[in-house]
Amino acid sequence: MSKIFEKTKQAFDLPVGMIYLDGNSLGPMCHASRARLVDEMDNQWSKKLIGGWNESGWYHLSQTVGDKIAALIGAPVGSVTAVDSTSINLYKALHAALSLNSERRVILSDKSNFPTDLYVAQGIVEQLNKHAVQPFILKIVEAQEIVQAIDESVAVVMVTQVDYATGRILPIADIVKKALGYGAKTILDLCHSAGALEVDLVGLNVDFAIGCGYKYFNGGPGAPAFIYVKAEHLAKIEPVLNGWMGHASPFDFELKYRSANSINKMRVGTPSILGLASLDAALDVWQGVSLKQVRNRSIELSELFIQEMTKHTDELSLASPVDPQLRGSQVSFCFDQGYALVQALIAQGVVGDFRMPNIVRFGITPLYLDETDIVKACEKIVLVLEKRLWDQPQFKVRSAVT
Amino acid sequence: MSKIFEKTKQAFDLPVGMIYLDGNSLGPMCHASRARLVDEMDNQWSKKLIGGWNESGWYHLSQTVGDKIAALIGAPVGSVTAVDSTSINLYKALHAALSLNSERRVILSDKSNFPTDLYVAQGIVEQLNKHAVQPFILKIVEAQEIVQAIDESVAVVMVTQVDYATGRILPIADIVKKALGYGAKTILDLCHSAGALEVDLVGLNVDFAIGCGYKYFNGGPGAPAFIYVKAEHLAKIEPVLNGWMGHASPFDFELKYRSANSINKMRVGTPSILGLASLDAALDVWQGVSLKQVRNRSIELSELFIQEMTKHTDELSLASPVDPQLRGSQVSFCFDQGYALVQALIAQGVVGDFRMPNIVRFGITPLYLDETDIVKACEKIVLVLEKRLWDQPQFKVRSAVT
Repeated sequence: MSKIFEKTKQAFDLPVGMIYLDGNSLGPMCHASRARLVDEMDNQWSKKLIGGWNESGWYHLSQTVGDKIAALIGAPVGSVTAVDSTSINLYKALHAALSLNSERRVILSDKSNFPTDLYVAQGIVEQLNKHAVQPFILKIVEAQEIVQAIDESVAVVMVTQVDYATGRILPIADIVKKALGYGAKTILDLCHSAGALEVDLVGLNVDFAIGCGYKYFNGGPGAPAFIYVKAEHLAKIEPVLNGWMGHASPFDFELKYRSANSINKMRVGTPSILGLASLDAALDVWQGVSLKQVRNRSIELSELFIQEMTKHTDELSLASPVDPQLRGSQVSFCFDQGYALVQALIAQGVVGDFRMPNIVRFGITPLYLDETDIVKACEKIVLVLEKRLWDQPQFKVRSAVT
Repeated sequence: MSKIFEKTKQAFDLPVGMIYLDGNSLGPMCHASRARLVDEMDNQWSKKLIGGWNESGWYHLSQTVGDKIAALIGAPVGSVTAVDSTSINLYKALHAALSLNSERRVILSDKSNFPTDLYVAQGIVEQLNKHAVQPFILKIVEAQEIVQAIDESVAVVMVTQVDYATGRILPIADIVKKALGYGAKTILDLCHSAGALEVDLVGLNVDFAIGCGYKYFNGGPGAPAFIYVKAEHLAKIEPVLNGWMGHASPFDFELKYRSANSINKMRVGTPSILGLASLDAALDVWQGVSLKQVRNRSIELSELFIQEMTKHTDELSLASPVDPQLRGSQVSFCFDQGYALVQALIAQGVVGDFRMPNIVRFGITPLYLDETDIVKACEKIVLVLEKRLWDQPQFKVRSAVT
């Protein structure tokens, strides 16, 4: 198996001397993305100009990329489009899900959901309640209570499969089963799953899914996100974000909106072609690699990481589940001076990240990390802890963006 | 004056042998955009990885670009942010405008508005009317009736300053004056104005404006769009698209959304950094160039274009206003076989575009077009018309994307 990953590691342009354990936040650059962007500049945009929309495949790029992503999340061809941001795609999915359950008023989610998902839902609730006679409610429960909280009042259950902080995996199959029993729709946020876990959207039977292009898919900073719609819903839903790219016939410039009879109806305006091109090229690294292989390898490397850390230090306490089957492709620890520790580690060439209030996160990404990286990273972490290298003033000032 | 434009022309990577009269649809590539994207790949993303959000200025790039755009549309620093697509920004602006006039129900627009703007409004009306007791109405009138149609029922007037098909300029000052008198809010779509006309948003006193980064601003295919909010409204409006980038403190990961106390509140998710970087670099071509100079030069070149065409052919009838003061930075003609004509012209190296049902458009963009280009283009158009080169089967089949 490691042969496959020796090959995929070569696909990435990784900085010499850095062990990058933050691919769950922003994936590194593939050589193919660089080559593709240079080609887009030198041979497409600058040479073909407006003609690029036809000749360079730009118009269909959201679909091209969507289909590549679909193959990696257990979704059929034509069920995913790559556009806009995760937040905006969640907004579309929530409105669509609510429209399929128009008599109900509860959006159910959990406290460990990524905050922006809760923000999106809050925005919708506030907006709808300006007019709704029977008010909408965003009900937020503890993660472990989500299955129990599903009842006949719930219009839609909105969860993120992998907790961004701890890496804890939610029991999606149980959630969907309960939701189906009570007629609630489901929206699955795959930001920390896509490209990390074996996701089978059709098998899971979720109604909508959304996710991001810049973490495990390595599309580049702010890469376009994606949205999946279950086939049976596609004809029934009408977008709330109506834009020309979602029109059945965009270039007829009709005055009236008619939504496309395909996943294109989830498109709105003109997508970022540079962003899509980079993501499109980065997704080719998955040719000949299965998510099963990636997942197994991620567990191997994560277990090694935890084992090495446990062996050499007791200053960090594991924040992630011990059972690898319940843990995403990251290992998190609690440490009171977590922010300073992460800064000191970065100074030593080990890049993880900090999440409030005291979480130190390390992303384990088999496409470009191997045992040597993991062992070296552990050595450096132990060194920084032992020598208290984090305990220096310059590491303690949080910058605006962390 | 032409010295300035000799210099700006050098800033663009223009294909040899092509006269590009479609910069009003997609601007050509600046050498600076290419260099910037190569730098983003070679020195920022690949080297700094997640650190790029701080060290490479990514987090503030929407603001950096927003401020550059603000200077070109008569808007103050801090009043514009560059994010998402034009359609999505219009969606935000419409909801915000409606919230400022919550007792009213009419969105007023005109038939010559860009169809996607009408689609966005239709989507909002349908969405709100699912719950609103007193229904919302999208009222669409003829462009020349828009001033007259403003009354005390109108919540918001939504217009595009320059008609995408004919280039006709709407009397925005009159529209805003009437709107102010009746308490209606105004949204101005600057897609065909920004970078083409002397736009003075503060002087015009409009409430919201939106526009695009890929036409006269040359940001690249699908470049991020922008949104302007009048200072006095900023504190009063709450976004409907709530995302973490619009939060007052995104990296505190609070469960509750609190909107930023700045134009950042119009941000939603993570923006396309590659798209913003290209646009940021392209905007530097405006250093030392005023919109007044560009506008005057555009009129000179447009008048020359019309004069040359009129002198040599009577097969095309002018669809644009004869008075240059009433015409944007484009010249359009009616021609029944317009699609075929445009294809035949492209084969001759003169790139314009076709708009339904019979409009042939030519964008006049002084940053990279001069008298020689205009005269040559006219010669080729006359040649294609005289020899009926457009009357060939291969030019008559409309492709999916045109």
